[in-house]
Amino acid sequence: MAQLLAEKRDFDFVMWEQFDNEKFLTHEKYEAFNKKTCDMILTEGRKLAIKEMLPTMADGDHVGLKFEDGTVTTPESFKPVFDLMTEGEWQSLGVPEEMGGQGAPSFISFAVNEYFSAASFALNGYTAMGVGTANMIQVFGSEEQKKMYVKNLVDAKWGGTMLLTESNAGSDVGALETSAVKNADGTYTITGNKIFITNGEHDLCENIIHPVLARIEGAPAGTKGISIFIVPKYFVNEDGSLGDRNDIWCTGIEHKHGIIASATCSMAMGAKGTCTGFLLGNENEGMKVMFNMMNHARMTTGLQGLAYASGAYQLALNYARERVQMRELGQPHDAEPVTIIKHPDVRRNLLWMKSYVSGMRSFFQYMAYQEELSHLADTEEERVLADGMFELLTPIIKSYLANRGYEVCVQGVQIFGGAGYTKDYLAEQYMRDCKIASIYEGTCGIQAMDLLGRKMGMQGGKVFMTFLAAIQQTIDDAKALPDLADLAERLQKMLGKLGEVAAHLGKNAMSEKFKTAFAHSLPYLDVMGDTIMAWMNLWRATTATKALANNPKKKDLPFYEGQVKTAEFFIRTVVPTSMGRMETILDMSSAAIDISDEAFGGL
Amino acid sequence: MAQLLAEKRDFDFVMWEQFDNEKFLTHEKYEAFNKKTCDMILTEGRKLAIKEMLPTMADGDHVGLKFEDGTVTTPESFKPVFDLMTEGEWQSLGVPEEMGGQGAPSFISFAVNEYFSAASFALNGYTAMGVGTANMIQVFGSEEQKKMYVKNLVDAKWGGTMLLTESNAGSDVGALETSAVKNADGTYTITGNKIFITNGEHDLCENIIHPVLARIEGAPAGTKGISIFIVPKYFVNEDGSLGDRNDIWCTGIEHKHGIIASATCSMAMGAKGTCTGFLLGNENEGMKVMFNMMNHARMTTGLQGLAYASGAYQLALNYARERVQMRELGQPHDAEPVTIIKHPDVRRNLLWMKSYVSGMRSFFQYMAYQEELSHLADTEEERVLADGMFELLTPIIKSYLANRGYEVCVQGVQIFGGAGYTKDYLAEQYMRDCKIASIYEGTCGIQAMDLLGRKMGMQGGKVFMTFLAAIQQTIDDAKALPDLADLAERLQKMLGKLGEVAAHLGKNAMSEKFKTAFAHSLPYLDVMGDTIMAWMNLWRATTATKALANNPKKKDLPFYEGQVKTAEFFIRTVVPTSMGRMETILDMSSAAIDISDEAFGGL
Repeated sequence: MAQLLAEKRDFDFVMWEQFDNEKFLTHEKYEAFNKKTCDMILTEGRKLAIKEMLPTMADGDHVGLKFEDGTVTTPESFKPVFDLMTEGEWQSLGVPEEMGGQGAPSFISFAVNEYFSAASFALNGYTAMGVGTANMIQVFGSEEQKKMYVKNLVDAKWGGTMLLTESNAGSDVGALETSAVKNADGTYTITGNKIFITNGEHDLCENIIHPVLARIEGAPAGTKGISIFIVPKYFVNEDGSLGDRNDIWCTGIEHKHGIIASATCSMAMGAKGTCTGFLLGNENEGMKVMFNMMNHARMTTGLQGLAYASGAYQLALNYARERVQMRELGQPHDAEPVTIIKHPDVRRNLLWMKSYVSGMRSFFQYMAYQEELSHLADTEEERVLADGMFELLTPIIKSYLANRGYEVCVQGVQIFGGAGYTKDYLAEQYMRDCKIASIYEGTCGIQAMDLLGRKMGMQGGKVFMTFLAAIQQTIDDAKALPDLADLAERLQKMLGKLGEVAAHLGKNAMSEKFKTAFAHSLPYLDVMGDTIMAWMNLWRATTATKALANNPKKKDLPFYEGQVKTAEFFIRTVVPTSMGRMETILDMSSAAIDISDEAFGGL
Repeated sequence: MAQLLAEKRDFDFVMWEQFDNEKFLTHEKYEAFNKKTCDMILTEGRKLAIKEMLPTMADGDHVGLKFEDGTVTTPESFKPVFDLMTEGEWQSLGVPEEMGGQGAPSFISFAVNEYFSAASFALNGYTAMGVGTANMIQVFGSEEQKKMYVKNLVDAKWGGTMLLTESNAGSDVGALETSAVKNADGTYTITGNKIFITNGEHDLCENIIHPVLARIEGAPAGTKGISIFIVPKYFVNEDGSLGDRNDIWCTGIEHKHGIIASATCSMAMGAKGTCTGFLLGNENEGMKVMFNMMNHARMTTGLQGLAYASGAYQLALNYARERVQMRELGQPHDAEPVTIIKHPDVRRNLLWMKSYVSGMRSFFQYMAYQEELSHLADTEEERVLADGMFELLTPIIKSYLANRGYEVCVQGVQIFGGAGYTKDYLAEQYMRDCKIASIYEGTCGIQAMDLLGRKMGMQGGKVFMTFLAAIQQTIDDAKALPDLADLAERLQKMLGKLGEVAAHLGKNAMSEKFKTAFAHSLPYLDVMGDTIMAWMNLWRATTATKALANNPKKKDLPFYEGQVKTAEFFIRTVVPTSMGRMETILDMSSAAIDISDEAFGGL
């Protein structure tokens, strides 16, 4: 039967053949897991996603949310599936056991979450966001706070959020105006308004715990004076029961392009009476806490781009195998029409989509691999390097997967022709839902600044060097295989040029031409991402080629063949355009900086 | 005041400075027009677009259409503006006087239509589609048919459509199943169902004249057996009054991603009784009639891409000049925040958008110029060549402007950040509305096949050679200007490579590798489009540089500076990626053809 959302065989390939995740399962931390249990988890998660969650995706989009008198009502179809998911404790699959979770390794919880995101991102968010809040409290909270909040958040009995953005403080967090005044009892009175708060209010949990960024009276301006507070919707009594309603209210929800069933709330604190918050961590250390959460959010956003792209690809592929239209190219005029997968331009488009889905999935799983390496590192040096790699690649996972994922969704619509423009197929919704990924949790422009301004030079450049060396390893492996030697040679050239570009841009970013350098930061992020796609596709091809030489099962032959052809396609038809983009960075035109504001026109 | 939709100064520049349209106005055909009247028309059209039409854009999107009992009700805001537009005869501005139109030259009617399309594409379609139907009848109809239909269609008293697509005949027109049986009185009885019929039913006109593609009983299979019929919603009596209702009914409207206020109808003919049609032209020559209309539709679709892109750019630019967020790069932490147009990545994005809007507008006006050259040609040779150029570039105008226009709209959303994802700004709607352009009137894949399979070799390659020579002329002009010599040299290299790519691909398209060649046809269309963008931007820069040397008005300085910087930006930061894409076409990977269907996965 045709696959939906993502191909299970592909996860098996990435998790067990491309990456040697089995080695992690020998660690005592994962004694409850082996390859078989992981496989069972993924199979069950996939079933839940397709059978139960997927129907809520279009329904959530059509029915939408109802906002009335400060409350947000989710679509009727959500609650039963929310219950199924939380009863199965799916939202806490990757949460450490000491927090009350299942303690599964990252690679398996990421894989399951890819299915969940592709099936119903909005619904999945309601189940999973408490975990993010719980993580913050686990790391920075007092023992009392941990005891009071963590377990219920992990269980999705209570929901979590993140109150960061204000109307004049978006990318510029430091401009926020929400204030906190310390009370005699050690609590704080919070006053302010926040916007764009995901799941700030809804009817799926009995309580919602809001982490709120605010400035304590008298604290320094900018980010240095920001603290973070726990602001529960309902206060929690000492016995764990719910107490009075706090003065934090949803004042409206946004009418959005996509992810319509995900509540994007405006929140008012202290408008009707007194909003009380509890300091999390130390005063003026809010940004540290926030960044801890933000890295996780950026991974989730990248996953969103990947998951939608994968869902869109499977849909388009199934449609191309069913839709009959036009005779095959080169056949006589009276020849029978064929399925559109036979048409060259459709094949090009499908293989283009596949090359990104494959590259992005492997890249995402590579991040999981780095996370595991860090968790289970034998030495501090290993841990620091794995953490560094994770941090270096985080802005790319976020921005590149968001943008390329979106483009894959757009091409998915194209395969459907006119039908793709209607709401009859999920292709249209994938495209709309995906667009948010390039915007929230730091726009792509912000990610590019982070990459060039902070990440490239980490550990004196050692992390970036390690990254280049990791790619070199794959190239060397591929060069040893005659069928892949040519592709390996091409990636070798790309890698050489990437190093050159990085050095050139890094030097300029620290010169008086820094503005010009930063005008090339997003193109730079993109060529790093392209290189990673080429790397991952070549790695896949190498793994597949070795498997093909090793007496594979007959039913696996097309799968492995697909890996090789996909790598060929990406490296021969996408990489050269990326090399062209590298040339533009080396050329470093300063037109965008030199042009006067007036010369943009329109005045 | 900030400009909306499109910059008037830019039209003036393109129409009178870049292109020497004034020479056309000396022709007797245009004796009613001079530069001043053209300017007045554009000024008035712009005013109508911004003041009256633009408010209907978001309203049409929010209110949508109501379908009930076979009728389609448009938003209340539409009718008053529809009346204003048609009372002003704006829909017939470019229609020849002998058809009852205003007979304005193409360049001015296209310019006005760019404003109208950006202001309210859906509404504009209701006023203008009758003209397309009238054109068909004017060219192929009998004297009686012309007398009966043309004037009322041109006046938008009656609406027009095009009934082509069926559920199994989309790109594959030849597969259509709608049948026609000749009656004793010379009329035909039509039976069948059509889908995706724009404005197939609505309440803005008292009658609708449907051209319907159908196969006469016994006619050959495929496109060779297709005829076209006039099927009026209400029959027209000899005295011009309306008679009985014909049996053609709207059975539903699509729920679409965008252009929500444009009725996309399913139409049933002969389901309730007898649907009568009147043959237009000769039996089995329907495709010829259809293609006449289709070329016009492809121009309109390209214009849509351009118009939305321009509207999105102006919106984003205005927002970037108002939105304050973050301090300027390189300033101390406590520096005041600035408008986001000061940030390098925002500038890059805006200039990227501007370079496409500029290139696309000039390209579109170049098509108008070719149309005028053809209309007013002194010799048959001139006419044939101008027509050839127009035909060669039609698939590019359609596909390239649709795709790049969409990407500009997407980047427009990005400038708005989170606000761009909401329905609070038109940025979101431009993006949604624009997506259709890559799909209808022949998908981009179909356009690419047309370009490679039919257009490149026209007139024994003479048209393409003329195209290359036209670009060379601009290069030579630019080389003579020291400030532009470097950019000219870069375009020279691009042009050389384009010629090489065209020859290589053309050869392979006629070899046994034809499938592989066609798998590269859309990338080829794209590099042709990129070359045209570079050409147009360099042409603009050349015109501006000459103007700068000629004692310009002070207020024009930023405008001209903008042309030069935009050309620099495009040629130095976009062209190299396009050169990379040309490399991929020369390399001609056959991966997309060689891969087996199974290896795409998902089975």
